[in-house]
Amino acid sequence: MLNTIPTIDDIYSAHDRIKKLINRTPILSSGTLNSIFGSSLFFKCENFQKAGAFKSRGAVNVVYSLSKEQAVNGVCTHSSGNHAQALARAAASRGIPSYIVMPENAPKVKVEAVKEYGGEITFCKPTLEARESSLKDLIEKTKAYEIHPYNNYDIIAAQATANKELIEDVNVNLDLILCPVGGGGLLSGTALSKNYFSPNSKVIACEPLGADDAYKSFRKGEIVPSKNPNTIADGLLTSLGDKNFDIIQKYVNDIVTVREDSIIEAMKIIFERMKIIVEPSSAVPLAAIIEGKVDVKNKNVGIIISGGNVDLSKLPF
Amino acid sequence: MLNTIPTIDDIYSAHDRIKKLINRTPILSSGTLNSIFGSSLFFKCENFQKAGAFKSRGAVNVVYSLSKEQAVNGVCTHSSGNHAQALARAAASRGIPSYIVMPENAPKVKVEAVKEYGGEITFCKPTLEARESSLKDLIEKTKAYEIHPYNNYDIIAAQATANKELIEDVNVNLDLILCPVGGGGLLSGTALSKNYFSPNSKVIACEPLGADDAYKSFRKGEIVPSKNPNTIADGLLTSLGDKNFDIIQKYVNDIVTVREDSIIEAMKIIFERMKIIVEPSSAVPLAAIIEGKVDVKNKNVGIIISGGNVDLSKLPF
Repeated sequence: MLNTIPTIDDIYSAHDRIKKLINRTPILSSGTLNSIFGSSLFFKCENFQKAGAFKSRGAVNVVYSLSKEQAVNGVCTHSSGNHAQALARAAASRGIPSYIVMPENAPKVKVEAVKEYGGEITFCKPTLEARESSLKDLIEKTKAYEIHPYNNYDIIAAQATANKELIEDVNVNLDLILCPVGGGGLLSGTALSKNYFSPNSKVIACEPLGADDAYKSFRKGEIVPSKNPNTIADGLLTSLGDKNFDIIQKYVNDIVTVREDSIIEAMKIIFERMKIIVEPSSAVPLAAIIEGKVDVKNKNVGIIISGGNVDLSKLPF
Repeated sequence: MLNTIPTIDDIYSAHDRIKKLINRTPILSSGTLNSIFGSSLFFKCENFQKAGAFKSRGAVNVVYSLSKEQAVNGVCTHSSGNHAQALARAAASRGIPSYIVMPENAPKVKVEAVKEYGGEITFCKPTLEARESSLKDLIEKTKAYEIHPYNNYDIIAAQATANKELIEDVNVNLDLILCPVGGGGLLSGTALSKNYFSPNSKVIACEPLGADDAYKSFRKGEIVPSKNPNTIADGLLTSLGDKNFDIIQKYVNDIVTVREDSIIEAMKIIFERMKIIVEPSSAVPLAAIIEGKVDVKNKNVGIIISGGNVDLSKLPF
């Protein structure tokens, strides 16, 4: 297990370790979107990733990095979202149990998905305290290995492979790489890959105004935790981890915020024009383009689509 | 313009002609779907095609096959669907006008799309007679060149390129190639490409039970036109063209029918598991697999996804 900022070799190793257990997701472009925004947009489609989100990269990497001794009692985490599904799937693939603490109000579709992958669920009250204390009890009982969803260098090294693939597979030099930010796992990985594999690109993080802890932290130079974050982009409600923030401060070029109505508009454009299903978090970078927060005119722009796990019966448009 | 069944060289020529004006659409697979059905399914994603459907292939080919004299007054057709959008786009790209007769009850989203591509719309009563007589009037007035959506060898040669790309890009030998059938443009092209580029594959056409004229015609050996067809798969309401039927009789291996509930179930699975947006017509082949009408066990199966133009505010699930 890594205990410092991943090196270029750490990212290569993570990629080798996970390659056969994840999808090398396609990069899609839309002529219509390119004409609307006067730029060349390249969408790295992690909505087509195993378990529907980039989280599978990190989960597989950590689960397969554990020694036999560390893995013997299984793995655990608390999560109401994509990390839970990804971890359950990764554990099942290695043949070890997974224990997931989920808030009792977690979306039914996510609960079902965790069960389908063989995860054992413990429900708790929907507060951070209840989640943490339930997880503590669970660890005492099972001795399972806890895997944090983002504040973990092995997770970061693996999330970095999404942008590594984007840089390798796109046939142009990217001027900009846009990435949503929640806890900072994907963003810190994306920034590291930019630094190692495409140092002339700029990474711009995009964040909902209603959950702008990364924006505030980046400007202040220290972590400013979220207070009552509220956004349709449910994957971005979490606050930055310190390991993530350290990397973000070093290698992210800027962070911008977007309004809720722009997120919904961007999501609708992606559905209607690109014919792909994305979760609201994935629409945040395009929202920044729509609002003019990022100038993409005549530029080659990579956009990381984080995932596609969304309740289709509750679309906001 | 072609006046006999397209040869292998005709299909190569059509592909060369349209290549730069269409997308070489990706082939997607889903690990989850493959385990559910115990087979390897390869989805050729024409929902990512220009104007959202395979129809762009045919429209571009015909528009660019016209001589200067034939093209000078523009092109016209009657259509309430994807052919209208594709033709308007192709005409705009060549810089000639397009005139589209649309029934006054055509979905607003399709009307808007035709307008956006610069098509000039004439509305008529929603009957075949009204559509044909309006088109006749329009041709007298404009002298525009009429382009039939499917009963046309240049259209067929171009629709054949979708399956040609599938065969070229997939890295296995396909045992089966499944394709929806409406008027028969896509199916006849798919069958020709099978014959020329993968003769050991079998092409199975999949049709809604509520619009089963191809099924009946194939069994009877002569065209049996649709009577009051009714299906959610709005792209498959049309009856077979004679040029299409001729090819279908020669090169299609079988035609199966599916129920409406299976089409909706298949559509939902594609949305939820594959994270792509498809129109109901595109879900018909997977519906045939769900119903067990096609045995795909341990087989490599290509599936042509015809398009993704669907009203997202009216999803049937």
